[in-house]
Amino acid sequence: MNSAIRLHTKEHIATIEHYKQALSLLSWDAKTSAPLNSQKQHATIQGTLSKELYLLQTDPAFAKELQHLQEQNLNQLQQKQVQYYWNIYQKLSAVPLEDYHQFSVLKASTHALWSQAREQNEFKLVEDNLQQLIHMLKRFAEYRNPHLAPYEQLLEEYEPDVSSETIDSLFQQIKDAILPLLTKIKCSSVTHDTSFLNKSFSIKNQQKLGKHLLTAIGYNFKSGQIGTTTHPFSAGIYSQDARLAVRYDEHNVKLAAFMFLHEGGHSIYNQQISSDLLDTGLGAYTSMGLHESQSLFWERIIGKHEGFWRNHAHLFKELEPAIYGDISFETLYYALNEVTPSLIRLQADDLTYLLHIIIRYELERDLFSDKLCVSDLPSAWNTKYEAYLGIKPETDRDGVLQDGHWYGGAFGYFPSYNLGFIYAAQLRESMIKDHPDFDEIISSQNLSLIADWQKQHIHQYGKLKTPKEILTSLSIGRIDAQPLINYLKKKYEGLYKL
Amino acid sequence: MNSAIRLHTKEHIATIEHYKQALSLLSWDAKTSAPLNSQKQHATIQGTLSKELYLLQTDPAFAKELQHLQEQNLNQLQQKQVQYYWNIYQKLSAVPLEDYHQFSVLKASTHALWSQAREQNEFKLVEDNLQQLIHMLKRFAEYRNPHLAPYEQLLEEYEPDVSSETIDSLFQQIKDAILPLLTKIKCSSVTHDTSFLNKSFSIKNQQKLGKHLLTAIGYNFKSGQIGTTTHPFSAGIYSQDARLAVRYDEHNVKLAAFMFLHEGGHSIYNQQISSDLLDTGLGAYTSMGLHESQSLFWERIIGKHEGFWRNHAHLFKELEPAIYGDISFETLYYALNEVTPSLIRLQADDLTYLLHIIIRYELERDLFSDKLCVSDLPSAWNTKYEAYLGIKPETDRDGVLQDGHWYGGAFGYFPSYNLGFIYAAQLRESMIKDHPDFDEIISSQNLSLIADWQKQHIHQYGKLKTPKEILTSLSIGRIDAQPLINYLKKKYEGLYKL
Repeated sequence: MNSAIRLHTKEHIATIEHYKQALSLLSWDAKTSAPLNSQKQHATIQGTLSKELYLLQTDPAFAKELQHLQEQNLNQLQQKQVQYYWNIYQKLSAVPLEDYHQFSVLKASTHALWSQAREQNEFKLVEDNLQQLIHMLKRFAEYRNPHLAPYEQLLEEYEPDVSSETIDSLFQQIKDAILPLLTKIKCSSVTHDTSFLNKSFSIKNQQKLGKHLLTAIGYNFKSGQIGTTTHPFSAGIYSQDARLAVRYDEHNVKLAAFMFLHEGGHSIYNQQISSDLLDTGLGAYTSMGLHESQSLFWERIIGKHEGFWRNHAHLFKELEPAIYGDISFETLYYALNEVTPSLIRLQADDLTYLLHIIIRYELERDLFSDKLCVSDLPSAWNTKYEAYLGIKPETDRDGVLQDGHWYGGAFGYFPSYNLGFIYAAQLRESMIKDHPDFDEIISSQNLSLIADWQKQHIHQYGKLKTPKEILTSLSIGRIDAQPLINYLKKKYEGLYKL
Repeated sequence: MNSAIRLHTKEHIATIEHYKQALSLLSWDAKTSAPLNSQKQHATIQGTLSKELYLLQTDPAFAKELQHLQEQNLNQLQQKQVQYYWNIYQKLSAVPLEDYHQFSVLKASTHALWSQAREQNEFKLVEDNLQQLIHMLKRFAEYRNPHLAPYEQLLEEYEPDVSSETIDSLFQQIKDAILPLLTKIKCSSVTHDTSFLNKSFSIKNQQKLGKHLLTAIGYNFKSGQIGTTTHPFSAGIYSQDARLAVRYDEHNVKLAAFMFLHEGGHSIYNQQISSDLLDTGLGAYTSMGLHESQSLFWERIIGKHEGFWRNHAHLFKELEPAIYGDISFETLYYALNEVTPSLIRLQADDLTYLLHIIIRYELERDLFSDKLCVSDLPSAWNTKYEAYLGIKPETDRDGVLQDGHWYGGAFGYFPSYNLGFIYAAQLRESMIKDHPDFDEIISSQNLSLIADWQKQHIHQYGKLKTPKEILTSLSIGRIDAQPLINYLKKKYEGLYKL
């Protein structure tokens, strides 16, 4: 036998994956179903399973076997598996268990404090904790690799092979293109009354709209379901169970519509991972940036396309005829694409979205290189909003306390959103090479060609291919902001007749 | 130190409880949220955690510690804990792990086959599996105690201290009282048109009705939530997370109303267990019969009480005025209490409900003493329905394939329903001693005295008291069918003017 992974190792790996899946289900439950009073105990249960997961992943016999396997003649799947678990082993075992425990308690309490701070609009409440989180993340990085800057290590966790130097350059290109474009749009004479989007659109009808849109883009309801939550998310528990949770605001149907498309995009990625990879460790998205590229592709490239809405505008009219009966297609299409600088990331149009992320990236990068103090974070946030978007939060609730990522210890995560948008535009160009009738496909009732292409080139592989390998296989070469800039310029210059 | 349970044992016990809670959450998810295609993997994940739970409960070091502790001077909580886990250890370790595994696979596949058999109305499909299940349960009983009949051991699992001899005598008394009463009701001239109950009552309004009823009886929504499922159930994950899941039939609002009260009763029990018992192993219901007594108390004794509906009949009128606008209180009250022999247990009135259970009990008792062959089960079922209820199922779907209990390996479970009803009537008498104005309380808007009484005498203790100890503390003595018979006779002789 050609040194295949031994049965007990395979079983050990499957057990690890079952714990990850169970934790993912528990986290879904905590965010969608669990009652208020259960929060503390729910976290305790998750803590017990997480500890077992930690022990399984750092088991010395398992590590020894992984080391042994590295020297063997393995097939591609096995090689990737060994590499994947070996990386996890090294990352976990580099940090003392006591530190992990301290960190997980700190994360939970800081995130809870953030909720409070946000409610009370009081950054001071959470300042010290945030400082400690950053301090601990730096210490972890020091344990793992004293020769690589902490922030680079954090970035790597979400997007391998993309350094802050690359991100700096990509984001500078984007700023150079988007900022002047925004100025021109401000001066454009094109404008419509879009207030109809904020009229009461019943939650029940928003749910119906969402189901229609998800069906249209190819989400499989037999392998997923929709939940309700405060902070929308997708749970790719495994490919046969890819759920999404959204939130509703009766006076903001646009938020729901694009959220369904966004989370639907994530979920289609999750659903289209080959089921052969189940319980191998590789049956998950390859990177956060790639994952985000798929949700943004469906939300922004397909979901904001004129042809797509030619097919779906009737849903608005049918569900809320009193509001949409008299709205022309052009006005609706404009409203869905309107560019307006605003303070809230989740509701942002394509252009300002990129700036929302750049602001967060620049701030966290500076925090980790000690160019910015935590105590100065709120004012630095406001200054950047003023500089890039021309508006300034009146309260920290709409400013530095807006997103929970940092307060849950997720630094290096934000850039994935923009990297995803950049990838999405590159993938769009690649798709057009294979399907020169790309626009007609989107304008037709049948979008399955799009999802099929994604499955064939990206989704099915799970972690079998890195983002770099996927780009290479599509002759894309490397991450490049130009396709995104070209796409946005052409689209918005058209919309605003610039 | 007075031989308190040592820290690591306490931690071991907490870990066991966390696994049980996680499994309970996963089971809730499987029944309310999990998509169709996830069934198999969902079971695999549960299997992995169940195996770990088995290992934790049969851990030799833990067992040794339990044995050691039995000889120490412990407080009451500790004594009960040690006894509880020691019983589990003995029960689990008596059966080879391989047999457990085989049994759990057999249970899952038989339950799945049952669904199919039910759909296809084909008992033959599941006959062999059912036979094997019975065979394995007998073998398990043999392993555990060759001197106690298998069916007695099964009964004990759900209701300690109640043998089949006692059940035979209790159920005989019930038959002797109910069968003649049913005959008299059949000849009564009291009758009303009750078809309005089957008119379309929107699911949304049934949900509203349910929420009102749950609020009225004191269910705490901050420590629970409502889900939708095929087979209604309650999940007492812990006292701060006591959920219930129901099903809706647009043309059967009575089903939903009583299901809400039934599962609400279970959930109030779960919510009122002292939170001091969390993670001790004793923070759960003391027996299935006692649990059922609490759901039946709210469903049937409170939920079918005239005074209760004097306060709540307006909900029907408000939610579906077109149907209920003209229905008099007397007609509605009659309709909610109408006695009609039917084939379906879940929809049965108080009197025939008892017979539905007696039929199942007599059949399973005879299966285990080899007085009845599995192949004769369908016809035996039909014969008993003819004999006790005067109606005969036309298909096995409405007959022997109606409930899933047996096909999931749950024998000895059915009697708990009637034992629960018997307890409920005994507890009612006890409650009346403390609150002679019992009927007025139910007729008032404030039912909290009822739940408080239950908490004080039953709920708070979890497994700290056995059913026997609870009855004794209430000077009830022992289980006795007479209070139930008296209650039912009085109520239905009144309703039907006999």
